[in-house]
Amino acid sequence: MEEKKRSKSRNEAQEELEYYIEAQGLKPHDKLPSERELSEYFEMNRSTLRMAIQRMVDEGKLYKGEGSGNYVAEPKIVRNLKTMDSLTKLIEQNGKELRNQVLSATVVESNKQIMQKLKVPLGTKIFQLSRLRFIGDVPFTVETSMMEYARFPGIEKIDFEHESLYQTLEEGFGIHISKGTEKLALTFATEEEAVQLQVQPGDPIFFISGIAEDAEGRPVEYFRSVVRPDKIKFSSILVKETREKEGETYGITGNHL
Amino acid sequence: MEEKKRSKSRNEAQEELEYYIEAQGLKPHDKLPSERELSEYFEMNRSTLRMAIQRMVDEGKLYKGEGSGNYVAEPKIVRNLKTMDSLTKLIEQNGKELRNQVLSATVVESNKQIMQKLKVPLGTKIFQLSRLRFIGDVPFTVETSMMEYARFPGIEKIDFEHESLYQTLEEGFGIHISKGTEKLALTFATEEEAVQLQVQPGDPIFFISGIAEDAEGRPVEYFRSVVRPDKIKFSSILVKETREKEGETYGITGNHL
Repeated sequence: MEEKKRSKSRNEAQEELEYYIEAQGLKPHDKLPSERELSEYFEMNRSTLRMAIQRMVDEGKLYKGEGSGNYVAEPKIVRNLKTMDSLTKLIEQNGKELRNQVLSATVVESNKQIMQKLKVPLGTKIFQLSRLRFIGDVPFTVETSMMEYARFPGIEKIDFEHESLYQTLEEGFGIHISKGTEKLALTFATEEEAVQLQVQPGDPIFFISGIAEDAEGRPVEYFRSVVRPDKIKFSSILVKETREKEGETYGITGNHL
Repeated sequence: MEEKKRSKSRNEAQEELEYYIEAQGLKPHDKLPSERELSEYFEMNRSTLRMAIQRMVDEGKLYKGEGSGNYVAEPKIVRNLKTMDSLTKLIEQNGKELRNQVLSATVVESNKQIMQKLKVPLGTKIFQLSRLRFIGDVPFTVETSMMEYARFPGIEKIDFEHESLYQTLEEGFGIHISKGTEKLALTFATEEEAVQLQVQPGDPIFFISGIAEDAEGRPVEYFRSVVRPDKIKFSSILVKETREKEGETYGITGNHL
């Protein structure tokens, strides 16, 4: 028995725990059995169990309650990386409310980076909107959007605490965002971001940046956001890439990564 | 002048530095000017500059050389989240060599989680392949693949240090992977993963898991991988989601996240 207990790695312990929560039908804010009970049930070393629990807390799957209790956290919002679906809609589908706090909405001059991304001359007037977004009371992302001001005159007067940006571009200015590209990487919260997102400075956070284009492929918006990884995860539908090239069709030749 | 120096945030400092590297055409392993020179050039506070440099080191964009020098790092490999492109091909396109080390290749019994993912009964024989993958000499991902053994008898004898998994499934067993789904989240390296990936235990790493299916939509592979965030970033092409529903076409109604 001791042999078996020792042989479980933290990853296996976490898998078993995750499966247990699912199989038992535990809901958000349900309390887990005590660590002693779980360790007996899984025939698992207490320290392995504790490390697995800690990792699940760090990942936002469990949270610590009063005393020594461990509780099931709210599920993360899953964002599909393939579509430009509405954040509002996505969050509402999860039975939550999206709230926006406008951090700044100003007209600035394009610097060299914005110039390059939006394909405008240096010094072009840029509308820059920075929003802190909440699921319920929990801040989970700071998004900064930059757009050529001349295409959206007066946009700085719109109340983006209550209006959707893309809906405004569409209904107010006749610009339809139809596609885009984005990149996802890891970064570490600055002090300012830490305060906004209610994390610690230096905590790992997702960094997403990209460009949204209109139907003609002209860049409309350059966006950058930081996202709390304990609140959002990303999903992607993988498709077989086929390219016609000199009559041949190229498909998958290797692995998924 | 002092005013201007103080007003730059670490994010702005980082943007300027990144643009500088690009505009100056600095290449991987090129040395940056000294921090004193950079701070004068950008009219930037030394401590802000140093924090921006540290963040870029953490993000894998710069590295510290001998003494106090800062050097441009190798660019990250960009992986497209939408396609199941070959990792080998992707890495070769970046002028690098992909190397595989097989950590384990065994036949195990399905546990409850695998049972659910691959839609097989509990206790089904599962081929489990775990590979540590390197770009040149740098380990960047541990991938574990799980497949129903009965569909691939003898697969455990194949040398996956030199053979591609998907190519083997296709050419050796006539199974074509045609689509799949995956999820991306953040986790923290266990001690074992830290040794494998040459990071510190507890360092943030990407966690990707998903299912690859054959042309009939039957699950073929359940995969899980951890990825070093300083070596890989992800890109995604965003498309307008249109759904026909009672004659209406739904498009974008909100923002990109």
